[in-house]
This record gives sequence, structure tokens and C-alpha cells, in this order.
Amino acid sequence: MRTRIPILKLRDTLIVSIQWELDDQMALSFQEDLLNKLHSTAARGVVIDLTSIDFIDSFIAKVLGDVISMSGLMGAKVVITGIQPAVAITLIELGIRLEDVSTALDLENGLEKLERELED
Amino acid sequence: MRTRIPILKLRDTLIVSIQWELDDQMALSFQEDLLNKLHSTAARGVVIDLTSIDFIDSFIAKVLGDVISMSGLMGAKVVITGIQPAVAITLIELGIRLEDVSTALDLENGLEKLERELED
Repeated sequence: MRTRIPILKLRDTLIVSIQWELDDQMALSFQEDLLNKLHSTAARGVVIDLTSIDFIDSFIAKVLGDVISMSGLMGAKVVITGIQPAVAITLIELGIRLEDVSTALDLENGLEKLERELED
Repeated sequence: MRTRIPILKLRDTLIVSIQWELDDQMALSFQEDLLNKLHSTAARGVVIDLTSIDFIDSFIAKVLGDVISMSGLMGAKVVITGIQPAVAITLIELGIRLEDVSTALDLENGLEKLERELED
């Protein structure tokens, strides 16, 4: 239990801040927890903040891409914030295009962007 | 590293959501991390959300009381949100009065309360 990532709910939005490298099991637990919480809270948006992450491996990148697609299927918009250069490089090199996802510089901007998108 | 509690920064405020029982080491790491982050970000407020916690032991209760006092010394206001009945009972029975601290029902209310207090 202790190695799970906390998911915060703020109004209509779930906020997740990933602040250290995930191992594979944590990444899968995170995916499951987030989707369950989307279902139980009926949240309409998700902000995933990667500000503190300066490296992701291919498995984590894939899980991240999957989480975004799955959240979209469940009707939630996802904004990823704080993508650092090395993370951006990894995502593109692995072919994870994050096409349906918005990005923003930091958590504040991400929440604002999400609120604007949900209003539309 | 993996057992640390993520601390989010949103505008002037640090947000911490404690979603499972802490062991003693995690509680001490949390105390240290929060004070360091207060220092490095110059945040003026802290919201500690305990919504998912239905039990705290005496050591964790003491650490929590200490964190609140220490944050106050560093010039930050603390709001605790989502205190459940059993947690309230433990805190009072242990003589941890949380006199200088505001409380609120949930994260949204806690952030609003903090913003109002910081404006005063």
C-alpha cells in the first residue's frame, strides 16, 4: 500500500504529482488507481504533473500513454505538466505521441488549461 | 525514496494528501521534506489533507502537531482538512490541541479558507 501514488481530488479534477521514478509495479498500480478514482469520483479532468521527473523508461512511458488513452475513453481530459527535456525526448523516440493530450508548463497552468477546456 | 509523500505546489500553497497510514520513518521524512519545500518555494500556506486516514497513532499525531508548529515558525499558515472522527478523538486524547491551525471539511474548502486567511 505504501508505494502507491496519492491522487488528489480538487473540484472536478484529479491531480497526480509523480515525484520520483516509478518501478513497473507502481506504474501499474497507479494506472488502476487513477481509473478507479475517475470512476468513483466522476471527475472530468486529470492533471499529471511530471515536474520532478527527469527520466522515464520505455515501460513507464507506455503506461503513461495508456493511462491517457484510457482516461479519454472514460470521458476525462488529461493535461500533462512539467515535461522535462529528457522526458520529452524519450516520449517522442518511443513513438508515444500524446496526441490527444494537452501539456502545460506547471501545475497552475495545467489546472487553468483544463478548466478552460472543460468549459468549452 | 519511493516511500516519501509527494508535496504539490499550487500558487502560494503546498498541498499534501496523506492517503495511507504512515510509519515512523515516513512521518519524519515528511516533516523534513515539507519544511525544506517551504523554505525553497517560500510558500505561505500548507494544506494537509487527511481525508483517507481513519486512524493515527500517537507518534504520527505528535509529528503532525510538530509540523504545524514548525511551519508556523517559518511563517506559513496550515489548514488540516478531512479529519475523521477517530483521528479527532486521537488528537484530543493525546493533548494535541492544534490551537494555531485551521481545519476544513475537504481540500476545496481548505484551499479557500487558506486563501481567505492569507488575504487578511
